[in-house]
Amino acid sequence: MIFLGKEEIEKLVDPNEIMDQIEEAYRIFGADAYYMPPRPVIEHENKTLIYMPCFTENVIGTKMLTIFPENAKLGLPSLDGLVILNDRTTGAPLAIMDGQAVTAWRTGAVGGVGIRHLSRRDARTVGIVGAGAQGFHQAVYACAARNIETVYIWNHSDRDLTDFMDRLKKTIADPAVKVVQCKTVEELVKASDIICTATPSEEPVLPNDRELLEGKCIIAIGSYTPKMREIPDVIWDLVDKVYIELPYACEESGDLSQPLAEGRLTMDRVVLMDKFLASGADEDEIAGKTTYFKSVGMGLFDVCVAQKLLEKAKER
Amino acid sequence: MIFLGKEEIEKLVDPNEIMDQIEEAYRIFGADAYYMPPRPVIEHENKTLIYMPCFTENVIGTKMLTIFPENAKLGLPSLDGLVILNDRTTGAPLAIMDGQAVTAWRTGAVGGVGIRHLSRRDARTVGIVGAGAQGFHQAVYACAARNIETVYIWNHSDRDLTDFMDRLKKTIADPAVKVVQCKTVEELVKASDIICTATPSEEPVLPNDRELLEGKCIIAIGSYTPKMREIPDVIWDLVDKVYIELPYACEESGDLSQPLAEGRLTMDRVVLMDKFLASGADEDEIAGKTTYFKSVGMGLFDVCVAQKLLEKAKER
Repeated sequence: MIFLGKEEIEKLVDPNEIMDQIEEAYRIFGADAYYMPPRPVIEHENKTLIYMPCFTENVIGTKMLTIFPENAKLGLPSLDGLVILNDRTTGAPLAIMDGQAVTAWRTGAVGGVGIRHLSRRDARTVGIVGAGAQGFHQAVYACAARNIETVYIWNHSDRDLTDFMDRLKKTIADPAVKVVQCKTVEELVKASDIICTATPSEEPVLPNDRELLEGKCIIAIGSYTPKMREIPDVIWDLVDKVYIELPYACEESGDLSQPLAEGRLTMDRVVLMDKFLASGADEDEIAGKTTYFKSVGMGLFDVCVAQKLLEKAKER
Repeated sequence: MIFLGKEEIEKLVDPNEIMDQIEEAYRIFGADAYYMPPRPVIEHENKTLIYMPCFTENVIGTKMLTIFPENAKLGLPSLDGLVILNDRTTGAPLAIMDGQAVTAWRTGAVGGVGIRHLSRRDARTVGIVGAGAQGFHQAVYACAARNIETVYIWNHSDRDLTDFMDRLKKTIADPAVKVVQCKTVEELVKASDIICTATPSEEPVLPNDRELLEGKCIIAIGSYTPKMREIPDVIWDLVDKVYIELPYACEESGDLSQPLAEGRLTMDRVVLMDKFLASGADEDEIAGKTTYFKSVGMGLFDVCVAQKLLEKAKER
């Protein structure tokens, strides 16, 4: 059995390969060649364990997540976990991987695939709203998906971002990429062709301003509960469609459930990403338009990314 | 994070320490100082994943079991798995252990604690019915719990047991212990003070013979579904009480559910082991009597045994 920790995973990741693997996961999703039952959730004393099993034709994976909100008091991330791969035929454990690292690299790659197919080919700037682990990886993948010259960062608190920005510069493959902190989110939105939101906000974090958002590619990955919200109402005047991974996102994320409940969004404007990709991801469909991808993630992505990491670890 | 495979676990196990830890688990059970929710079960294409979470005051554990019955065709055990320990405060993964090894050593220890408190102090012989992994460990623990001179083995098939018996002789601490194969189960029962059944049988494996079973200590660990049955009806004429771990066993095991349904057994004769131990495990209560312990196991045992193994691994 193979164990892959954070550092080993970081060494194995090639962002373009992981984005290719996410596209493979979309094909598996579209072909219905997987089994992903509802996630068992165990809660006790405000400590939550979530088991996320998923069978593909190649492997069985379980992401085991721990969500301990009181970790914040200790200065620790509230989410931790492991990804476990089992042999598809015998059930034997094959690999165990750091769950934070797999989650971060796969979530970044899901956003990256959104950027690959929903942003202008000549995009040169990306704005990251939320300087956490997810925002970090969105920036790395944006730079892999497009020829980014400048990454703009904005964070809601006045936390010193020097360390975050230094690490980011080191991780982005191209040393010519500039990393710049913005004083306001308006400044960030104005300067960026692509905008990634990666916050746990319960109020929209982007300005509700038609002019500022028009023509941008918006990748929203933060909201994963009905209370959470990152994207303002004006988005529905700007976009024809919202691209999502699976219908369940419409219940799970406030960025979809709230506008659906209010009638601002109707289901005929919701497009499943796997169908868009399978139909050829027509660039004319998005040319010159504001585009919007909303991600909540799914276990299938974790399993496919973990499988790719295991393959790469074995090659070494 | 620490990973413990089969061989490392075998090196760390001291049978008496593990039995002490099982008694500690009974105290935790009796004090209700744990949280063990129903086990989420995922089934797909005759392949089953079971997640067995359990919170104690010290640690959070999950046994993740795979049950793949078609492994038998490949000559592989149908059960495999992992035990994962997480920090009680932060949820951070602390240790991952081979699930087959933890299960085998803890199940053996649960039977061993039964032998410690329900068999004659001067027992010198133990009979093992079923030459599988569980039977193997029952024999090891029986020799740790009592001054056993001879271990008798009987298996339903005519499989060659030379290798099994050689490994057993090597694992039992005392080299003077003899390991002898019996031709019939009657021969085994006759020769043994203590009888451990560890089979997946759906029919009683012991003879339905009052004289043969009288005065013996019977430890039954095989039956864990309502269809499975190891112990014959005559047992209810021989014993006052049956000792079990938790009330749920009465539904789960055919050795209890069937006689309960038929009226041969009534709930007033069912004693919870933790209560018996907490009350001092009075030897007079069992002196000269036929005794019967039926085990189905519980996640709390896995977590407590895994915690002890982690402590011992850290000491090294």
